[in-house]
Amino acid sequence: MIRVLVWNEYEHEKKEEAVRAIYPAGIHNAIADFLRAEDVTVRTATLDDPECGLTWEVLRETDVLLWWGHHRHGDVPDEVAQRVQEAVLQGMGAIFLHSAHKAKPFMRLMGTSCDLVWREIGERERLWVTAPNHPITQGIHGFVDIPHEEMYGEYFHIPQPDEQIFIGWYQGGEVFRSGCCYNRGYGRVFYFQPGHETFPIYHQPEIQTILKNAVRWAAPASRIDALGCIHRETPLEQI
Amino acid sequence: MIRVLVWNEYEHEKKEEAVRAIYPAGIHNAIADFLRAEDVTVRTATLDDPECGLTWEVLRETDVLLWWGHHRHGDVPDEVAQRVQEAVLQGMGAIFLHSAHKAKPFMRLMGTSCDLVWREIGERERLWVTAPNHPITQGIHGFVDIPHEEMYGEYFHIPQPDEQIFIGWYQGGEVFRSGCCYNRGYGRVFYFQPGHETFPIYHQPEIQTILKNAVRWAAPASRIDALGCIHRETPLEQI
Amino acid sequence: MIRVLVWNEYEHEKKEEAVRAIYPAGIHNAIADFLRAEDVTVRTATLDDPECGLTWEVLRETDVLLWWGHHRHGDVPDEVAQRVQEAVLQGMGAIFLHSAHKAKPFMRLMGTSCDLVWREIGERERLWVTAPNHPITQGIHGFVDIPHEEMYGEYFHIPQPDEQIFIGWYQGGEVFRSGCCYNRGYGRVFYFQPGHETFPIYHQPEIQTILKNAVRWAAPASRIDALGCIHRETPLEQI
Amino acid sequence: MIRVLVWNEYEHEKKEEAVRAIYPAGIHNAIADFLRAEDVTVRTATLDDPECGLTWEVLRETDVLLWWGHHRHGDVPDEVAQRVQEAVLQGMGAIFLHSAHKAKPFMRLMGTSCDLVWREIGERERLWVTAPNHPITQGIHGFVDIPHEEMYGEYFHIPQPDEQIFIGWYQGGEVFRSGCCYNRGYGRVFYFQPGHETFPIYHQPEIQTILKNAVRWAAPASRIDALGCIHRETPLEQI
Repeated sequence: MIRVLVWNEYEHEKKEEAVRAIYPAGIHNAIADFLRAEDVTVRTATLDDPECGLTWEVLRETDVLLWWGHHRHGDVPDEVAQRVQEAVLQGMGAIFLHSAHKAKPFMRLMGTSCDLVWREIGERERLWVTAPNHPITQGIHGFVDIPHEEMYGEYFHIPQPDEQIFIGWYQGGEVFRSGCCYNRGYGRVFYFQPGHETFPIYHQPEIQTILKNAVRWAAPASRIDALGCIHRETPLEQI
Repeated sequence: MIRVLVWNEYEHEKKEEAVRAIYPAGIHNAIADFLRAEDVTVRTATLDDPECGLTWEVLRETDVLLWWGHHRHGDVPDEVAQRVQEAVLQGMGAIFLHSAHKAKPFMRLMGTSCDLVWREIGERERLWVTAPNHPITQGIHGFVDIPHEEMYGEYFHIPQPDEQIFIGWYQGGEVFRSGCCYNRGYGRVFYFQPGHETFPIYHQPEIQTILKNAVRWAAPASRIDALGCIHRETPLEQI
Repeated sequence: MIRVLVWNEYEHEKKEEAVRAIYPAGIHNAIADFLRAEDVTVRTATLDDPECGLTWEVLRETDVLLWWGHHRHGDVPDEVAQRVQEAVLQGMGAIFLHSAHKAKPFMRLMGTSCDLVWREIGERERLWVTAPNHPITQGIHGFVDIPHEEMYGEYFHIPQPDEQIFIGWYQGGEVFRSGCCYNRGYGRVFYFQPGHETFPIYHQPEIQTILKNAVRWAAPASRIDALGCIHRETPLEQI
Repeated sequence: MIRVLVWNEYEHEKKEEAVRAIYPAGIHNAIADFLRAEDVTVRTATLDDPECGLTWEVLRETDVLLWWGHHRHGDVPDEVAQRVQEAVLQGMGAIFLHSAHKAKPFMRLMGTSCDLVWREIGERERLWVTAPNHPITQGIHGFVDIPHEEMYGEYFHIPQPDEQIFIGWYQGGEVFRSGCCYNRGYGRVFYFQPGHETFPIYHQPEIQTILKNAVRWAAPASRIDALGCIHRETPLEQI
């Protein structure tokens, strides 16, 4: 059983009718609904929950965390961001969606500014598969067309991904490393560009396929309980 | 001209006579002395300098920063650590030495805990070249023997290096990814394991060759003035 | 169901009693025996079979190929080597064992000479895990001791692995990149150092665990029928 | 002094007036002309030269080889292709241009089929920098527009590059990993997509800047005389 937690800032949906029309119960519930499966349980949490809904108790019972945030990254307390980072390093999978490129836990895990170039005119994105043998790209044949998306362009200030599995093409002339896989400690991290709140991108079947695949890929093979250096006083060999 | 800054915690040398005997003017000055060259200027800074000697003014005039720290990582203020991280992302090179694996700027740049296994019995380390075509390994033929070193062993909690150029063998039975190259934003980062304070490792000619090479490799090709996302309102293509 | 084919040069076992004592039915059958499972079927093939037992018909029905060879790499016809390479690029997994570092299909897939340094005095190897979250290292806690092994040392002329999951320590003073994962086309490739024919290494439970894991990791997510460039005459966008 | 050899199939320019109009002395001479510098000597060779102009004598005196080929890849003898591959593994730099993705030495160095998707309608390519700190991208600010180019699209059957420094955007809707850096043995390899023969792409100043940079990047730091495994009979440590 894979235990998923979908975290959402949950601000646009409450304040903007256009967004609420697409995601009446919030982006988190839309994602939770299609991720649920016989062997996948899904819970949700939001920014305004106590401790953002991200206590150690919750994180220890989470195999894969999905994160959607945008305007209120700064309202996530540093200690919560650090806790999420540590949980990943101990083995929890993490999938950062769209504008979560500037989410505190993602920036901490990358070590870079995660800055990019952007434009919001609803142009077309075409997501190209550059790793057809990767578990996350299974079921996707060559590319995915996203009719309207916010443009995110290079240079994207990230470490070179361990595996670059999608590259995005934009109608307005840019490219973007739209699907990036990382190993960080015992955990796996996937950054996935699509998902601007004003377009029904998470209702698109191919995007759902990718996220379902990503959850299985990010589920931990093994976990540790704590971090810390280890003193091995006695050498393994006679000296 | 490459402008180098050698930063040292500078604690062991003041408190422990055994260390002072090896590095009478401090590790920073020992390193500064052999790095100086016709086209390399070197300054030093230490933990107890105001702002740790690491103001923006200093960092902007530094091409490559070398960092040695051990017991007092926690005394480097977070804002100084963040400043160093940002300077690297803007292009400054950074070389983290030995126990600087737990230095705040290094941990921030890696995004991982940088934990490892250690033992301090002064065993032999043999440093193997695994990238003989890399600029940093030039002049090193196959391996370097370090007669006495603190053991640092796997699992080392770091992101897989962009280039793994040295792997360390230890007499007591461990291995370690002892030389690791990373690109982070516009900057280059080199982690180099050797350099426990109680052994005269930085007096060893091969180690000096490696660090001289590393300074040239880490010197920035180009730099930016600031980080931040960029809004490109007008598409490059007609839509 | 994962369909495995274990290929063996099968020369030492026939000619040398010491090897036959360890592997009476050949290395291929020893490996086949522990790989068989409810969802894993295993066949074997050897150098002296017609076409080395590696026709397209066989390769098309093979999900993962394991390869052990040593003295007679040159007797594998180039067209067989090319066929195996193509099958991997089309999705078949391949696991190259020990002296298969100089097997023709491995060298073709790497593009490098795959040369290394070696010594055969039966010294101890200690295999360190450097990727504890990788599917292949599951069940291995920190390291594996191999009491007697042929030494393979750096510099190993291979491309930097996509994932470096084991590093070997040798009693005689060397290190080696003993476990290396690669993606090549639609296929996955694992090189695994242990397995000199005069030591009972494939009877060791940890080695068996690693190879069982490797088979599951290397099994194809998807496959293609043929290679070749594709002409897409009509642009996807109006020009 | 960097000794460059520009190799060209030299077929289109002789047979097609449209190509000759752009490159009257052949693509090789056009490239040679802008690469020449105070510290760079440049020679040329073509397919119809004896041994393709690529004897060991020539390769031993070449620091960086540039390769342009298209219709007649098959006419390069296998022994010449193998010689070039070996020279790279021994340290010679190699830059493969445009349709040289299917050149025999490149395919041998990659180990994959190097297939791709293509279309020849002269659409616009925009080359995006994804590694602004890389020596090859210096002097290029964000992107390069190529008014007319043959489209090369994903999936490109190559190993994931050691450094992905350019990604191409195409007007017709595709993306391509247009600038790829590899380390292979002691040598460095750069694949660079631009350069279809019917467009004056090598006359474009930014393209010339990139190739000048690439020559300096690919020039060997060190070289070896021969390949081959090495027998080190005596352990470095007492056993």
